[in-house]
Amino acid sequence: MSSHLLSVDSLSRDDVDHLMRVSALMEPIAQRRKVTRVLEGAVLGNLFFEASTRTRVSFHAAFSRLGGSVCDTTGFTFSSMAKGESLYDTSRVMSGYCDAIVLRHPEQGAVAEFARATNVPVINGGDGPGEHPSQALLDLYTIDKEFTRLGKSLAGAHILLTGDLKYGRTVHSLIKLLSLYEPMRITLVAPPGLEMPSHLIDLVSNRGHRIETRESLASDFSDLDVVYTTRIQKERFTAEMSESFGGLTRDFTVDRAFMDRYYNRDTIVMHPLPRDSRPEANDLDVDLNGDPRLAIFRQTDNGIPVRMAIFATLLEVDHLIEKDLRDVRWFVPDTVGVDDLRG
Amino acid sequence: MSSHLLSVDSLSRDDVDHLMRVSALMEPIAQRRKVTRVLEGAVLGNLFFEASTRTRVSFHAAFSRLGGSVCDTTGFTFSSMAKGESLYDTSRVMSGYCDAIVLRHPEQGAVAEFARATNVPVINGGDGPGEHPSQALLDLYTIDKEFTRLGKSLAGAHILLTGDLKYGRTVHSLIKLLSLYEPMRITLVAPPGLEMPSHLIDLVSNRGHRIETRESLASDFSDLDVVYTTRIQKERFTAEMSESFGGLTRDFTVDRAFMDRYYNRDTIVMHPLPRDSRPEANDLDVDLNGDPRLAIFRQTDNGIPVRMAIFATLLEVDHLIEKDLRDVRWFVPDTVGVDDLRG
Amino acid sequence: MSSHLLSVDSLSRDDVDHLMRVSALMEPIAQRRKVTRVLEGAVLGNLFFEASTRTRVSFHAAFSRLGGSVCDTTGFTFSSMAKGESLYDTSRVMSGYCDAIVLRHPEQGAVAEFARATNVPVINGGDGPGEHPSQALLDLYTIDKEFTRLGKSLAGAHILLTGDLKYGRTVHSLIKLLSLYEPMRITLVAPPGLEMPSHLIDLVSNRGHRIETRESLASDFSDLDVVYTTRIQKERFTAEMSESFGGLTRDFTVDRAFMDRYYNRDTIVMHPLPRDSRPEANDLDVDLNGDPRLAIFRQTDNGIPVRMAIFATLLEVDHLIEKDLRDVRWFVPDTVGVDDLRG
Repeated sequence: MSSHLLSVDSLSRDDVDHLMRVSALMEPIAQRRKVTRVLEGAVLGNLFFEASTRTRVSFHAAFSRLGGSVCDTTGFTFSSMAKGESLYDTSRVMSGYCDAIVLRHPEQGAVAEFARATNVPVINGGDGPGEHPSQALLDLYTIDKEFTRLGKSLAGAHILLTGDLKYGRTVHSLIKLLSLYEPMRITLVAPPGLEMPSHLIDLVSNRGHRIETRESLASDFSDLDVVYTTRIQKERFTAEMSESFGGLTRDFTVDRAFMDRYYNRDTIVMHPLPRDSRPEANDLDVDLNGDPRLAIFRQTDNGIPVRMAIFATLLEVDHLIEKDLRDVRWFVPDTVGVDDLRG
Repeated sequence: MSSHLLSVDSLSRDDVDHLMRVSALMEPIAQRRKVTRVLEGAVLGNLFFEASTRTRVSFHAAFSRLGGSVCDTTGFTFSSMAKGESLYDTSRVMSGYCDAIVLRHPEQGAVAEFARATNVPVINGGDGPGEHPSQALLDLYTIDKEFTRLGKSLAGAHILLTGDLKYGRTVHSLIKLLSLYEPMRITLVAPPGLEMPSHLIDLVSNRGHRIETRESLASDFSDLDVVYTTRIQKERFTAEMSESFGGLTRDFTVDRAFMDRYYNRDTIVMHPLPRDSRPEANDLDVDLNGDPRLAIFRQTDNGIPVRMAIFATLLEVDHLIEKDLRDVRWFVPDTVGVDDLRG
Repeated sequence: MSSHLLSVDSLSRDDVDHLMRVSALMEPIAQRRKVTRVLEGAVLGNLFFEASTRTRVSFHAAFSRLGGSVCDTTGFTFSSMAKGESLYDTSRVMSGYCDAIVLRHPEQGAVAEFARATNVPVINGGDGPGEHPSQALLDLYTIDKEFTRLGKSLAGAHILLTGDLKYGRTVHSLIKLLSLYEPMRITLVAPPGLEMPSHLIDLVSNRGHRIETRESLASDFSDLDVVYTTRIQKERFTAEMSESFGGLTRDFTVDRAFMDRYYNRDTIVMHPLPRDSRPEANDLDVDLNGDPRLAIFRQTDNGIPVRMAIFATLLEVDHLIEKDLRDVRWFVPDTVGVDDLRG
């Protein structure tokens, strides 16, 4: 594995398998039964040049749970950059202070440019319409973990991807990761104008997967193992697209009625979050809250072990974790959310 | 005690007594003679959707002194909420990352709504005109600690509450806590339109306390044990009130002349801070700086042991503290402020 | 040494020598071969009332590497100060929460005023056009460390200071520190209107140093040991100066051609950073990137051991460091930047 994590494209099947194994190793810590201190003394630069509270806190908590210290930077500009500092200089300066750097930036390619100046591990926390590899890894980890719980395997699984498949970078990265595995069946449903780019469809087909598209969720589906739905990324639309797009209709909304129509007690519902809960948004419906098939919160929880695995692997402490565990001493609730699936 | 701390209303006399005892236990740590590590590995989500640097830093320092890590969020919106995320989703997501959550929010009731989605302990750090229970607890702790130093007891004490008694939520919460104790005498002095709400006066009367109101500080007072004065909360005024209210006059200003008129070397002066030191504000006068009766800085210092006690109690490590103390190794000044009462 | 670090003016030659020695002691930690925990349990209030991401992160990382916790405050106003709170009150309140305070403030003198209210060590992180003592100390440390590597000594060295010598506070503080040492030769080159203030020239002359001025970098130089160049501080210009100043011309730009003309393989190039890399800025040229004489990134790296030394000295744990070292367990790259001088 390279010394940075910039894109899922650089990950081999072995790299991904390794990260999945290390993520599983992190579960006792992520579930707060154990604590470790392997990164004690290490400093993370958690640099968010674009607001993303959820992602920032997730990386922060993951590094903290490994025993390290975190220095956050938020705000739309780094103060030095406003004075004409290049990404090269910013990168090199931060490298002198930090042992690892997470960077989120509104411009595609900025994180890779930043990484070129430094030997300190850099993790892409999202670069505009570009990549967000830790999200894709936690999505894959979620599917794998839920499948293990349900006694299923990835080979031959049927996965529905729906919503904004054009601008939703998480589905692009996820489909690339899935394509590394044994052949499966992938169905795509997107509103007109928001379809999955054809080069990604070709990539997945060429790797032996069966890929189909449907026009709306009113179609006939069967044997769905995963329903992965996404929010419309209006903030990434072109001006032209913004004007012509009338909003998501109910035809693309995953709700209890949809889930009950294609009923399968083993089907899981995923979403990269945040979901837009305003009724007019027609995003994933809240009427599934409390339904054990709704895996979205287990999915976000998985951000912790997966991001811990990324840090531990890049910083080469993955082999030390098991020898450095102690018991948690504080109160840990049985489940963190009131609606959670127990056990 | 419930698993959250949302309001002083949910606290029984036993709960309060317990928190006061645990706060006292925290003193060696708060005074920096000892350090503990009981919360090592734990993560606090310190979420401030309304600016309050003082309160944020106080919670941050308290959690850090217990050995935990803190992730701050500031700014008027949580970035996901701007994309239509519900408080329910935000709460559940943060619960997957954090072991405890402090939430400050400009809207009354928002913290309680947030807490309904999670089993992770949530502490109300102030919800608009609503509650701010940790402030009330540190106020009570201050009175108790100062009285112990002076050889006094709460029973029969005479407490003057003055300033903005209508919008000042700290005096509302404090008076409720005081009402749980043995009968005392409470005198209220507020400018016209800013009087204490009558339901609170009734509550305190019904619990056997003697409550009186006076029109200004020019009245005759005697035997005051505590003078608790508050800043005018203009930011919480209704539009009508803002227009009609001419500002606080000197008649409601606690200063050295007032304190010397009703001289009692044991009377303490309290204020929830910040105080407005601009002369036209007529807030608590700076001419009392350096006077040992001025307890406002000892009061703010008490935020640390009290907030440590809240965390330790909700996270159930209160019984571990005494066994987990080690000596501080760095320089600690005799007093932290140049004007402080020594010893 | 005083209990605060507000200005280089308060430092004696012995104080500076001590800080240089302690900085060297910190190298194994700053280079991430060792970790320490001497400040475990201590809290730093890292208060930035003016944006300076680099300085904030540097102080944050330095305190973290000593084992302490850091609470950052950023933003142009402290929320309480917006409500009329005095610097005195803010200082005293923060002192109750923190064991040390770094303060950056846009107004000259504000940090000293803040320090007058507290016995907790306060470090000036820059107060407008005033002081920035930690920068001057890391500049001096850099010269000393580079000279040691090159087998040179400060006595008799030839140092060129160029760029904005009027508003650039770092050159003011550095020249004061240098003046404490054995006689050396200092040459000044500034654009018209941005010359070094005469009282500083007098101070340095009176202490026995040979000081000269030249009109541009086109002059004839020889035997330069250090070229210290600075960015134009337009944000500190008076209105009049802003209007009349046409910008820095190439005559004041340090680039590879300049360095090769006065070739000396031992000459080092320094800059307090950030440098403005936009071509029209004519700041230190990027064509020197990768040249071993370019010491600017080694210089910023030195911020960590020097700031660690400041904290350790003010908090009186400097004598404990050597006994409290353990090995780093994570991956540390050979050099943190791709262009770095190895070894």
